Amino acid sequence: MSGSLAVVGLGPGDPDWITPETTAILAAAEEVLGYGPYLARLGPPRDGQRRHASDNREEIARARHALDLAAAGRRVAVVSGGDPGVFAMASAVFEAMEDGDPAWRALDVTVHPGVTAVLAAAARVGAPLGHDFCVVSLSENLKPWDLVLRRLDAAVAGDFVLALYNVASRARPWQLGAAFDRLRQSGRTGGTPVVLAAAVGRADERIVRATLADVDPAMADMRTLVLVGSSRTRCLARPDGRPPFVYTPRRVDPE
Amino acid sequence: MSGSLAVVGLGPGDPDWITPETTAILAAAEEVLGYGPYLARLGPPRDGQRRHASDNREEIARARHALDLAAAGRRVAVVSGGDPGVFAMASAVFEAMEDGDPAWRALDVTVHPGVTAVLAAAARVGAPLGHDFCVVSLSENLKPWDLVLRRLDAAVAGDFVLALYNVASRARPWQLGAAFDRLRQSGRTGGTPVVLAAAVGRADERIVRATLADVDPAMADMRTLVLVGSSRTRCLARPDGRPPFVYTPRRVDPE
Repeated sequence: MSGSLAVVGLGPGDPDWITPETTAILAAAEEVLGYGPYLARLGPPRDGQRRHASDNREEIARARHALDLAAAGRRVAVVSGGDPGVFAMASAVFEAMEDGDPAWRALDVTVHPGVTAVLAAAARVGAPLGHDFCVVSLSENLKPWDLVLRRLDAAVAGDFVLALYNVASRARPWQLGAAFDRLRQSGRTGGTPVVLAAAVGRADERIVRATLADVDPAMADMRTLVLVGSSRTRCLARPDGRPPFVYTPRRVDPE
Repeated sequence: MSGSLAVVGLGPGDPDWITPETTAILAAAEEVLGYGPYLARLGPPRDGQRRHASDNREEIARARHALDLAAAGRRVAVVSGGDPGVFAMASAVFEAMEDGDPAWRALDVTVHPGVTAVLAAAARVGAPLGHDFCVVSLSENLKPWDLVLRRLDAAVAGDFVLALYNVASRARPWQLGAAFDRLRQSGRTGGTPVVLAAAVGRADERIVRATLADVDPAMADMRTLVLVGSSRTRCLARPDGRPPFVYTPRRVDPE
C-alpha cells in the first residue's frame, strides 16, 4: 500500500488563513473529500484530481471512504473547516480506523494543523484568550447535555475564558440560551463580556459585542463562535465610534 | 496619525504554518518588534525595514515601543510565536494601551490569528483534542500558583482534555511535576495518555508518548507543549513499530 491520507483544515474563512502546508497538500492530492461548502472554497480541481462532496452528518462514512481510497494506493486529502483536530474530521478518521479494516492502521495517515475558529474570532475583537481558556462544543448530537452543563460549571469554577463551538442550528435552537443561563446560575456575573462572531473572515462577517446580562442568543446561528470572558476579561473603550477592544490581561494578582 | 500596529504569530515552528496574511503583513512592515529568536526566524529584513529584538521578559516595554512607533506614523508589526492571542503579545499590547497615552486608543491596531502550539502538537500524534478541552499556562510569573491548581481541578471535574503551556524553564523546574501530581490526586487515572511535544515543526522536534502514571516531567523544557487526555482519550496501536495514534472520540454515550 503506497497511498496516503492527509487530514487538513481550511481555517475559519479567509483564504489568507490557509497554511502553505495545507495548500501544497491539496494541490498534490488525487482525491479530496469533504463537506460540500468546504470543497467549494477550494476553487476548481486540477487535472486528475477528484472531489467527493458529502453532507456534514456523514463524517464517519467520509472517513471510511477516504481510508479505502488510501488503501487502494491513492493520495487522499480530507478537508475540514478551521483546524481538523478541533470538532472536525481528524477524530472521525481515527474512529473509522479503530472500527475498520486492520490494514488501515498501517497506512500513512497524517494530520496538519490549521487556524481554528476561536483564534480568528478572538483576534477580531482584541485578545480575550490572553489567559487560560476552555473550548466546548454545545452540540448534544454526540454527547449528553448533562456533560455540557458539567463542563460549563467547571469553566466557571476555574474562572476560564470560554469559547463555545456548534452553538446553534435549526435543529438545535435552545442550547446557547440554556448555556448562558447556566453560566449566570453558576456565578459568572452579568457584566462579563460576551462576543458573538459569525462567519469570521468572510464577506458577511458579523461581530456582536455584548455582556452576559444582555446577550441575545437568537443572534447566533450555525456559523457563530461565542466567547464568554472570565472575571478578568475587560473592554477597552476607544474614541470616535470605534468598537472597544475586548481583552484578558496576562497578570492575575493574588487576592 | 496614519501609523498602524499589527500583532501577528509565526506558528509553532514550521515556516509552512505561517499564514499568507502574516507573511504579507511582515513584508509590508516598516518596523518589526519581537523576541530575538522569533525575529531570527524571519530571514533578513527587506530594504527600509527595521528590526527591534528584545528579551522575552520585556513584553510590556516592547508593546509600548510598538505603540509609540505606530503613533509616530510608522507601519509596525509585533511578532509572537504561535498565535499572538494565546499567552503572547496581543494582551501585552492592550495592557500597555490601557495604561498608556490615551491617543494610542485611536490607533489602527489589529490582531491576526496564527497556528497555536497545541494544534500542531495534537496533529503530530493524532486527534487528542477531538472533544472539549482546556488550555492552561503553568507559569506563575503572572498569576498565583493556587489559581493554576484551581484550574487543574476544574479541568478534571469537567473531564476536559488539557493542554499545558509554559510548563518548564530553568527558573521554573517543579511546576509540571506538581501539576501531574495534582491531576492524579484530583482523580485523573494513571492510564490517561500524556504527550510531551517539544519544538514541534523544527529540526529537533521530539514527541514523547506516555501515561499519567509513568510520565517523567524532567523530559520537558521551555519549548515543550504537554497534552493530558480526558477519560475518553485512547491510543490506537499500529503495526510495524509505528507509534500509536492518540485520539479522543467525538461521541460520549450517556452513562
